[in-house]
Amino acid sequence: MFQGMPPTQKITLLGVRALTAVFQRVFHFGKEGTDGDKSMKALLGGKGSNLAEMSRIGLSVPPGFTITTETCQEYNGLGKQLPKGLMEDVMAGVKRIEKQMDMKFGDEGSPLLVSVRSGAAVSMPGMMDTVLNLGLNDKVVEGLAKRASKRFAYDSYRRLLDMFGDVVLGINHNLFEEQLEELKESKGVSTDNELNEDDLKELIAKYKQVYLNCGKEFPEDPNKQLELAIRAVFDSWDSERAKAYREINQIHGLLGTAVTVQSMVFGNLGATSGTGVLFSRNPSTGENKLYGEYLINAQGEDVVAGIRTPSAISTLEREMPQAYKSLLDNVDKLERHYMDMQDIEFTIQDQKLFMLQCRNGKRTGPAAVKIAVDMFKEGLITKDQAIMMVESGHLDQLLHPQFEDQNKYKARVIGKGLPASPGAAVGQVVFSPEDAEAFKAQGGAAILVRADTTPEDVGGMHASEGILTQRGGMTSHAAVVARGWGKTCVCGCLEMKVDDKKKIFTLGGKTFKEGDWISLNGNTGEVIEGKEPLSPPTISGDLSTFMSWVDERRKLKVFTNADTPEDAAEARRNGAEGIGLVRTEHMFFASDDRLKAVRQMIMAENVEKRKVALMKLLPFQRADFEGIFTAMDGHTVTIRLLDPPLHEFLPNGEMKDVCQMMANELGIDVAAVNDKINKLHETNPMLGLRGCRLGIVHPEISEMQARAIFEAALNVKAKGIKPVVDIMVPLVGSVTELENQAKLIRSTAETVFTERGSRVEYKVGTMIEIPRAALLAGEVAKVAEFFSFGTNDLTQMTFGFSRDDVGSFLPTYLANGILVSDPFQVLDRKGVGQLIKTAIENGRATRKDLKCGICGEHGGEPSSIEFVSGAGMDYVSCSPFRVPIARLAAAQAEIKKGKH
Amino acid sequence: MFQGMPPTQKITLLGVRALTAVFQRVFHFGKEGTDGDKSMKALLGGKGSNLAEMSRIGLSVPPGFTITTETCQEYNGLGKQLPKGLMEDVMAGVKRIEKQMDMKFGDEGSPLLVSVRSGAAVSMPGMMDTVLNLGLNDKVVEGLAKRASKRFAYDSYRRLLDMFGDVVLGINHNLFEEQLEELKESKGVSTDNELNEDDLKELIAKYKQVYLNCGKEFPEDPNKQLELAIRAVFDSWDSERAKAYREINQIHGLLGTAVTVQSMVFGNLGATSGTGVLFSRNPSTGENKLYGEYLINAQGEDVVAGIRTPSAISTLEREMPQAYKSLLDNVDKLERHYMDMQDIEFTIQDQKLFMLQCRNGKRTGPAAVKIAVDMFKEGLITKDQAIMMVESGHLDQLLHPQFEDQNKYKARVIGKGLPASPGAAVGQVVFSPEDAEAFKAQGGAAILVRADTTPEDVGGMHASEGILTQRGGMTSHAAVVARGWGKTCVCGCLEMKVDDKKKIFTLGGKTFKEGDWISLNGNTGEVIEGKEPLSPPTISGDLSTFMSWVDERRKLKVFTNADTPEDAAEARRNGAEGIGLVRTEHMFFASDDRLKAVRQMIMAENVEKRKVALMKLLPFQRADFEGIFTAMDGHTVTIRLLDPPLHEFLPNGEMKDVCQMMANELGIDVAAVNDKINKLHETNPMLGLRGCRLGIVHPEISEMQARAIFEAALNVKAKGIKPVVDIMVPLVGSVTELENQAKLIRSTAETVFTERGSRVEYKVGTMIEIPRAALLAGEVAKVAEFFSFGTNDLTQMTFGFSRDDVGSFLPTYLANGILVSDPFQVLDRKGVGQLIKTAIENGRATRKDLKCGICGEHGGEPSSIEFVSGAGMDYVSCSPFRVPIARLAAAQAEIKKGKH
Repeated sequence: MFQGMPPTQKITLLGVRALTAVFQRVFHFGKEGTDGDKSMKALLGGKGSNLAEMSRIGLSVPPGFTITTETCQEYNGLGKQLPKGLMEDVMAGVKRIEKQMDMKFGDEGSPLLVSVRSGAAVSMPGMMDTVLNLGLNDKVVEGLAKRASKRFAYDSYRRLLDMFGDVVLGINHNLFEEQLEELKESKGVSTDNELNEDDLKELIAKYKQVYLNCGKEFPEDPNKQLELAIRAVFDSWDSERAKAYREINQIHGLLGTAVTVQSMVFGNLGATSGTGVLFSRNPSTGENKLYGEYLINAQGEDVVAGIRTPSAISTLEREMPQAYKSLLDNVDKLERHYMDMQDIEFTIQDQKLFMLQCRNGKRTGPAAVKIAVDMFKEGLITKDQAIMMVESGHLDQLLHPQFEDQNKYKARVIGKGLPASPGAAVGQVVFSPEDAEAFKAQGGAAILVRADTTPEDVGGMHASEGILTQRGGMTSHAAVVARGWGKTCVCGCLEMKVDDKKKIFTLGGKTFKEGDWISLNGNTGEVIEGKEPLSPPTISGDLSTFMSWVDERRKLKVFTNADTPEDAAEARRNGAEGIGLVRTEHMFFASDDRLKAVRQMIMAENVEKRKVALMKLLPFQRADFEGIFTAMDGHTVTIRLLDPPLHEFLPNGEMKDVCQMMANELGIDVAAVNDKINKLHETNPMLGLRGCRLGIVHPEISEMQARAIFEAALNVKAKGIKPVVDIMVPLVGSVTELENQAKLIRSTAETVFTERGSRVEYKVGTMIEIPRAALLAGEVAKVAEFFSFGTNDLTQMTFGFSRDDVGSFLPTYLANGILVSDPFQVLDRKGVGQLIKTAIENGRATRKDLKCGICGEHGGEPSSIEFVSGAGMDYVSCSPFRVPIARLAAAQAEIKKGKH
Repeated sequence: MFQGMPPTQKITLLGVRALTAVFQRVFHFGKEGTDGDKSMKALLGGKGSNLAEMSRIGLSVPPGFTITTETCQEYNGLGKQLPKGLMEDVMAGVKRIEKQMDMKFGDEGSPLLVSVRSGAAVSMPGMMDTVLNLGLNDKVVEGLAKRASKRFAYDSYRRLLDMFGDVVLGINHNLFEEQLEELKESKGVSTDNELNEDDLKELIAKYKQVYLNCGKEFPEDPNKQLELAIRAVFDSWDSERAKAYREINQIHGLLGTAVTVQSMVFGNLGATSGTGVLFSRNPSTGENKLYGEYLINAQGEDVVAGIRTPSAISTLEREMPQAYKSLLDNVDKLERHYMDMQDIEFTIQDQKLFMLQCRNGKRTGPAAVKIAVDMFKEGLITKDQAIMMVESGHLDQLLHPQFEDQNKYKARVIGKGLPASPGAAVGQVVFSPEDAEAFKAQGGAAILVRADTTPEDVGGMHASEGILTQRGGMTSHAAVVARGWGKTCVCGCLEMKVDDKKKIFTLGGKTFKEGDWISLNGNTGEVIEGKEPLSPPTISGDLSTFMSWVDERRKLKVFTNADTPEDAAEARRNGAEGIGLVRTEHMFFASDDRLKAVRQMIMAENVEKRKVALMKLLPFQRADFEGIFTAMDGHTVTIRLLDPPLHEFLPNGEMKDVCQMMANELGIDVAAVNDKINKLHETNPMLGLRGCRLGIVHPEISEMQARAIFEAALNVKAKGIKPVVDIMVPLVGSVTELENQAKLIRSTAETVFTERGSRVEYKVGTMIEIPRAALLAGEVAKVAEFFSFGTNDLTQMTFGFSRDDVGSFLPTYLANGILVSDPFQVLDRKGVGQLIKTAIENGRATRKDLKCGICGEHGGEPSSIEFVSGAGMDYVSCSPFRVPIARLAAAQAEIKKGKH
């Protein structure tokens, strides 16, 4: 209905849609009928849509309903007011639950209790709020006591008081915890389970006193409880910690959180009840075996919070064989249905299994690859599905370094915890998230050591190399968050004692203080004293199988940016099919001899002296090119002529000593050095004398470089190696610039070919990195035989952002949603992307077979790779260690294309 | 024939066209038939095409032919080789001349002499070479002596030897001059005319000795003479002085020079012969009266060279009434034919008038306006033609300052010369072109004082404020060149004695040395001792009439860039219809109080302190805006929010004293000042924290500015003045940036309106100066109510050129034709222009009535104005003194549109 309308009118209509809310706000699930399904994640959140789906496919799910994410947006749009009519819909939903459960909300006779949970379209573990056991009050609790047991009823009520106070009314949770600890002490018991019904009744009174001390009141009316809990969940969407989490994880564009209201089932009805979380396969290794934990006689949050150490899921088979069998059946059904590894929450109430939640499980890199390969082999999924199942972040983890030799450090292992998130981490001990961030800011590497972690710690966890905790299991907060990031984590290292006030911890009989170096092995759970050397990863086994599927599927070629024969060889091992960018200037810094010659060239007073200095550089450049051509035998080597401003090769003028040293070395007056430094100083060096401008003002530089390239090519050709030479002119904005340099390159080639009596094929192309070159690509392609998009500079100039200077405003831009991502990390499709598309189209209109690629840092970023693949590029070029990620992204882009 | 072919093939075909030369190289004119006409300037040069045209309309023109500019290009393309077949065509042309003149080239009996002259499509006075009297040799001269007179024949021959030696063989002209001077001294005579035939014969022998001394030989073969002369003219196209002239005058894109070979006629056959140059109207004042000079018994170069002082054209009526009458007739015919004032060269041979050259005459600004107005009134041209006849440079001259009061300086007038080029100039005396350039480079103002000027001096002349010469008439080299540039020049100040070795001159009994201040009145020819005050120009009389025609014709509105009420008033007087750019930050520097408040704002440690400092700025800003609104009563005032990086308001960190002073003034520690300076330092400030980025990071700044604007608007409204407020957000690259700032402006407006109980209308718009904003203009226009193209920054980012840093490569680019003009002066149509066009189209697709204008410096540059007019802009905005030029350019753009 919006087509053909002017955009402004569309906006108005969309506005009206939000304001008048003609759309369904509440979606039901349960035996009485289910409105939603798994496709409705954006509207119902991950949790809500999966509950609906589980209910739809016949699993035993406690009935309930989900309030949409749109309603959350509406709530925020109304200035934190619930939209009119919402509570009526909610109460109708409650009625429907009552009917299915044959219970009544707020009724003393057959009391229905409900949970209220948050759930956005993207999982944000621990970030938003949940309230359980709603519906209890001083009267209802007595009714529940009659139907179940007194102990259970009072325990449920005191949990509600604690959670409701904390989450809904903002009373510090520790105030309740203190009362609990005091009581346990006075009763001489150590666990909650040892408290009897009278103790708990006493605790309820104490909790109510906490409310009064804080000037708050617990609402006895269950409907009021429900309304306030729904508001609290909506409010938690905008809490500081939730916003910080979204920022770190680059989660943008969501409407808000959904709220799921669901009938409670109880894992704390005694020894035949329990609650647990599990993964359908091992999320650390990918092994096809249930992986999880449960607690007998407990509610769900006891497992996740990591306070009691739970039992492994395998022991459930012994303890409750029937429930375990149902669980196995359900897990199998869910994996087949979702065609992915599942993360499941369940409760057993009096031997009966209820499924509370399922979602695709987070996993480590090795697990992701193994699961994908296994599921294909098991016939559960296709190769395309397997490829789509592995994320670039997963590969990234696999490509992270490991400890060089695990046998070497055995003597220095000071303790062992759970291998909660794999990998290897080396860093200096810190005891608070703030310290971790401060270390990171100063360029340090920190290992965050904590008794346990809470959602408030995410910033500091992200800033650390690795995380070590005393408490908590494999599904504790620290473990889940660290695995999501691929960050090494060792949890539940119970022997460790942490004193974060004194900033010390003891383990293995030794005491460590802030700043001491330790190493963590996330694959084994080992904690090692000192700084352990790391070695690069290798591609083999399942990964090798998986990458072969990826290569079958992709069409985009993957090149690499490499400046040395070593980098080139490394990239070849990672699967690079060519070099998209050799930065010749990097060679200039490689030795003192070279730098001296470069400086002589810069200091030369005239062309003749400059040529003499350049002739000293020639043999160095030629030798480097020979090495690279040899490493890339038969594969394209794209060489960029000198790009940076010359002052980068001179010392900073303020460093008087260095200037004097340089003067001494070159045998010239220091005044001349200072003079040249001043002369080369630029206000905006990014936009000054660099790129092809250098080669046009000083043609002898380009001539030397071209000569080095052609002489090297002929030298290796004589040894039977095949050089594939692409010469790239940087920073072109007008075709005339390229013409000038191409003429010089071609005439140098002819001179060298004549001298040597031998020839090689070569191409001359250009970087497209200046907006004007992109705009006039049709003209540029008359001369250019290939385009390589330099998206770093193109982004700088299209946005008018200096990469070196965005730090003063980009964080504000991201925080305020002015930009959804850093355009230097993720290619800006609308602006920069528009230039790229137009340039490729116009370039190929002039030259049909124009080769197009990208050599900016976006060439290794998956979403950017998807875009350039769609734009018709032939290749991407990225740093050697990103090559496998680029190969995967290229294959995934191809699969997505097929879906459109 | 080229349409539909791929561009590469077109290039090849054009290449082949030049190489195979299937095109006519030689075009004839004369009674036997004329090939060319005045439309063929590009091919035949101005001189060649006008000779053809004069011949075509029946004026008496000596017969000849013109070799095309394409042939010159061919010659250069062949590495300075004449194309095959050219000399055959030339000799056929000579045959044709012989037939018409009934004479023979190289024949002793009836010898034909020819001239060889250069002539490009654009006039370059004195820059290229001419050779006269070709065809003479030792034998032919005797034949000529029989037919005319011995004295004439020998004089012609010695002139040929001098000119041919100088121009064709590169023998220093002074070597011949020395011989002449020696001879005159030995004969005791003072002028050339007093030498008799024997003296001249002796001189011929001496000249031949000069050849031998230089190791050269004079070719006796007339055909060889002709070939060498043609080559010399072609070569002169690429001479250093010609290249310098083209660069200074921004003459680009020409193929080369044409060569005109023409039968000689003689002004030196005695007292009934003569030669002269004239303008059909006075080129200084525009008065409708012949204006020129002639010499009896002389050849053309004697007049132009300024060696003998010629007689005024009016005396010719007495001396040769018949020739004078023909001349009047011809001039009238030419003016009616060309519909413009004519610059004419003629020769009278034995009472018979020959027209040698005509072209549209160069003129001063006042003359251009008067001639245009007069010619319309005389019914010669239409108003449109009148408008097209005045160039922006002409208006520029009229808008230059004049002396405040001519009566005041009368006592200090030290001498008087010819008023060769009008205006007023004040500067320090220098005696060489090199010194003038050195003065200019150091920011000084020089008056170049010379005995006379030569084409080699153009660089120094251009660098001077004014030129004063001892010798030379109103059409001497100095006069013509200076008038072309609108530069003040006083010529032929005969009493003056110049000693350029001692660097002194004497005049009016006083001696002046290098560095002394003098003033020149180019309207009266007065030379004044000391530094005379200047006053701004006014628009009245013919100019006022002319500008009223301009305003009738144009559609584009002309706004101005003004930051103060004074500038605004000045611009209103020049016809500005609004302000397109108020740079609010310029106000920040206006007093110490303001700067102090700005610095307090920058140094503030938190938002609260920053707001306190901003509140101190508020009254200043408000008062400024009140002044500007008042000056512009009823006309748009477009106010740009703070744009520059904050470090521009702090001292340079290296100036320790200034930092300490600032610290003292603000009562803070100097370390804090240094700290802030370091913190604000940016690698590329052009691409850093500035523009709307400032207002987004520090919203309190935009809020204060918006408040100052709205309070000022309400204050003046209360006084009955009508404020028309456009608020402009700078440096927008994403619509979200504009949304952020627009929201803040609008909410501030509502706050102020509520406080005051009164409202004003206003618009919120944006600068389009970042490529991304231009690319996404359709989106930006959802929020922006107007676009103002900031083409300075847009050019910087589209090209990747920093204006501050292009000095290191732009001259090379212009010299090598990589760019045809400085894109910061003349808008780049292909790149930047493409962005502008697309942005206007897409912006108006979103918002039909989107107002579009330009406020970069291109807004006052005629070719850029023509472009933006075509692109559909509503207005241009330029500096107050460029407003009349912009009005003219806008009218001319409109007229040109009609022609397409």
